[in-house]
Amino acid sequence: MEKYNYGVIGLGVMGRNLLYNIADNGFSVAGFDLDAEKARELEQGATQNTVVKGTASLEDFVSALETPRKIILMVPAGKPVDAVLENITPLLNKGDIVVDAGNSYFKDTERRIAELASKGLHFMGMGVSGGEKGARTGPSIMPGGDLEAFNLLKPMLESIAAKVDGEACTAYMGKSSAGNYVKMVHNGIEYAIMQLISEAYDLLRKVANLNNDQLYEVFKEWNNGEMNSFLIEITRDIFQQKDSLTNDYLVDQILDKAGAKGTGKWTSEQAMEIGVSIPTIDIAVTSRILSAYKDERMKASQLYSEKQIIAPENIESFIKEVGDALYLATLISYAQGLSLLVKASEEYAFDIPLKDVVKIWRGGCIIRSVLLEKFYSAYTQNPDLSNILLDKDISEIVKSKLKSLRSTAAYAVHNGISSLGIQTALGYFDAYTTESLPVNLIQAQRDYFGAHTYQRIDREGVFHTSWKSTNN
Amino acid sequence: MEKYNYGVIGLGVMGRNLLYNIADNGFSVAGFDLDAEKARELEQGATQNTVVKGTASLEDFVSALETPRKIILMVPAGKPVDAVLENITPLLNKGDIVVDAGNSYFKDTERRIAELASKGLHFMGMGVSGGEKGARTGPSIMPGGDLEAFNLLKPMLESIAAKVDGEACTAYMGKSSAGNYVKMVHNGIEYAIMQLISEAYDLLRKVANLNNDQLYEVFKEWNNGEMNSFLIEITRDIFQQKDSLTNDYLVDQILDKAGAKGTGKWTSEQAMEIGVSIPTIDIAVTSRILSAYKDERMKASQLYSEKQIIAPENIESFIKEVGDALYLATLISYAQGLSLLVKASEEYAFDIPLKDVVKIWRGGCIIRSVLLEKFYSAYTQNPDLSNILLDKDISEIVKSKLKSLRSTAAYAVHNGISSLGIQTALGYFDAYTTESLPVNLIQAQRDYFGAHTYQRIDREGVFHTSWKSTNN
Repeated sequence: MEKYNYGVIGLGVMGRNLLYNIADNGFSVAGFDLDAEKARELEQGATQNTVVKGTASLEDFVSALETPRKIILMVPAGKPVDAVLENITPLLNKGDIVVDAGNSYFKDTERRIAELASKGLHFMGMGVSGGEKGARTGPSIMPGGDLEAFNLLKPMLESIAAKVDGEACTAYMGKSSAGNYVKMVHNGIEYAIMQLISEAYDLLRKVANLNNDQLYEVFKEWNNGEMNSFLIEITRDIFQQKDSLTNDYLVDQILDKAGAKGTGKWTSEQAMEIGVSIPTIDIAVTSRILSAYKDERMKASQLYSEKQIIAPENIESFIKEVGDALYLATLISYAQGLSLLVKASEEYAFDIPLKDVVKIWRGGCIIRSVLLEKFYSAYTQNPDLSNILLDKDISEIVKSKLKSLRSTAAYAVHNGISSLGIQTALGYFDAYTTESLPVNLIQAQRDYFGAHTYQRIDREGVFHTSWKSTNN
Repeated sequence: MEKYNYGVIGLGVMGRNLLYNIADNGFSVAGFDLDAEKARELEQGATQNTVVKGTASLEDFVSALETPRKIILMVPAGKPVDAVLENITPLLNKGDIVVDAGNSYFKDTERRIAELASKGLHFMGMGVSGGEKGARTGPSIMPGGDLEAFNLLKPMLESIAAKVDGEACTAYMGKSSAGNYVKMVHNGIEYAIMQLISEAYDLLRKVANLNNDQLYEVFKEWNNGEMNSFLIEITRDIFQQKDSLTNDYLVDQILDKAGAKGTGKWTSEQAMEIGVSIPTIDIAVTSRILSAYKDERMKASQLYSEKQIIAPENIESFIKEVGDALYLATLISYAQGLSLLVKASEEYAFDIPLKDVVKIWRGGCIIRSVLLEKFYSAYTQNPDLSNILLDKDISEIVKSKLKSLRSTAAYAVHNGISSLGIQTALGYFDAYTTESLPVNLIQAQRDYFGAHTYQRIDREGVFHTSWKSTNN
């Protein structure tokens, strides 16, 4: 019997689509799901003349694969991954490869690499971004860890990944759990950009009074220019979607309480853990939390009288300013996320190639954007850039948009439109580009009440002062 | 031989001062430290006619105490606490009480409570705030956990705690590790207020061009009015402190790189963990991180041309606005921290009495402030207030300062003065008081690319739409 080239475990929408994508690229694939129904339906949905087999028996699944087996997991992160590994590892042979393509926490991946290695098995963490559609037609794929295993998978990954200028949106992201880590930060940046887009939307609808048709036109225009990106594109589409239940615009029927799956939170926690500042990602996480207090918000909005909105004199130039502000705040969010990768690469000895990260994010993934071309150029010239804001060409872009970011931020502040993403992007930029922050005072306070000591500007060492009260 | 009423383990500056405070209040106290030098010096530093004994032998220490023994640990959080417990528990008898007065992580306290309970011992987590001086003359004390043990300690705690209007700044903070949790949030709020004060300082020195003598006068005036608080008071003093090495003002000689001990970070992580939004505390944590990138900041400040500061027309009214903005942003930071306590109280079944929390924070601790009187009134009238911003009287204060907060925030934004604390306090307020946030768009995006579903405003249930692209 002919053996199958690849195996996929977990036939939810992401797993099924990834499997079909592999099959569409000429590889034979067996799929397994505990849900026999999903396994049965798998073959029916496959493209004609592709070689696909579905099974609900783990033994059948494992014995159907050529060796070394190459098995991709697409099951929910956490316990489900451990459960699958516990069941499948006794059935595998030395040299077999298991690739976790879900959003697993990177420290779980580290642990699993060691566990499977002790049994002679290869385990890899691999980020996949692109949503359902991307999984089927070409995602961005972020594999990391075992280089030997990666090289065996590489031809398949390059076939199924999105392409930009003929180049596949996949590359080796570094050692150990680097693949999961890069994907985690990708999602953190995604949170930030979504937050920023929602703030631009709020300003345009509440201050400039644009309706959904006008919003569609604005986002369409933005997407046709330097802001071209997946998230701007789908936002454009969202404003045209009609509701099947009311025949109104669907966006207006959706409740303003955000959900979250946890990868944004992980990014923020990681950044605090290893000492990197990513305030716009943090604020995106906490803004989703805040949105869920709908009952309190309704009470509070009654207690605090309605905000008075002062419409801008020139709507056209206001829209342009908001667009430029969104563009620059987005750029700063990428800068924060990428700076986290730089530090994590050192901290965990991942050796993450930043140039390849931004290269493979150019296509397939949720945060793909033409802006990434500029980052790719920057890292090509200087692979060791500690922060993208320090690149000369990037600095020119920043300077050209800064006035708009300031004026949009001030507009929001005066008019009571919460714009935590925009404010933190600007605040981060202003702090990052300031030689002398007022943190000397914080150090003085800490030494005053807690004897925590301080450093000086004029000499080396650690100092403590017995501070005098001026009372009486 | 007469036995000692209390024992203190750890004779660093905080432990020693707390011990002397207990002794000054008429209790006999034995102290233990691994460092024999510290143990020896203990008796010399004690007030005359107080009963104090120092020892570097754990056996001598334990046998010197009356039973049930009441032992207070003041050692660094983490492994040192476990090391002490491992050494001391074999020497103790059933019913003895061990109180951890350090900044231990609340989950560690939960674990230790269970471990000691299995040996018939009482273990309590107790927050102590007030710095070195407070520990000696009257700190704010936040005990929690074992009610039986608390009642035995209560008379002593009430003697040594700070007093406000004749009432001791200590009360039972709730079950389990509530004492550590309340102290953790106290420190989170402390981070936020220190960040806000530093931003006000930056605006006053860079925009209003005030020198240290003028800053002293401003903070002195603030401290004499409604902003009276420990942190404003010591900031006032800091501006008068001369440097012994250069004879210049010391604050100007201190390097602008902040240190941190971790409790702020814990607060942010906890808030994300249990779903509470505390952006001004988050930003205070991340701002300290950002300050440490001094080399990058210096490079970036050269790449981005100097900011042009436009001085305000009327310096006096600018200073007043900055003061009002600081006052309101501080109030909003307390609101965030207190809302975290409300949620944690439910989440962990702590039963934290919010009214008592703000009552005992009025004196002794680092975040003591006359503002807490107003919170105390609010919670007295309504102990179940989910957010202090929902109180009618508080809302009147907020409204009276809001214009100043907006104008200060806008001033900072236009002039390139990073003011992440001020911006996030305002942004939190604006989001919290907004009935309709633009989060409907985020939910649409999540459903579009990830089929994450959404809720509707007009009917119950969970919905998914097959969103249409408008391409071509």
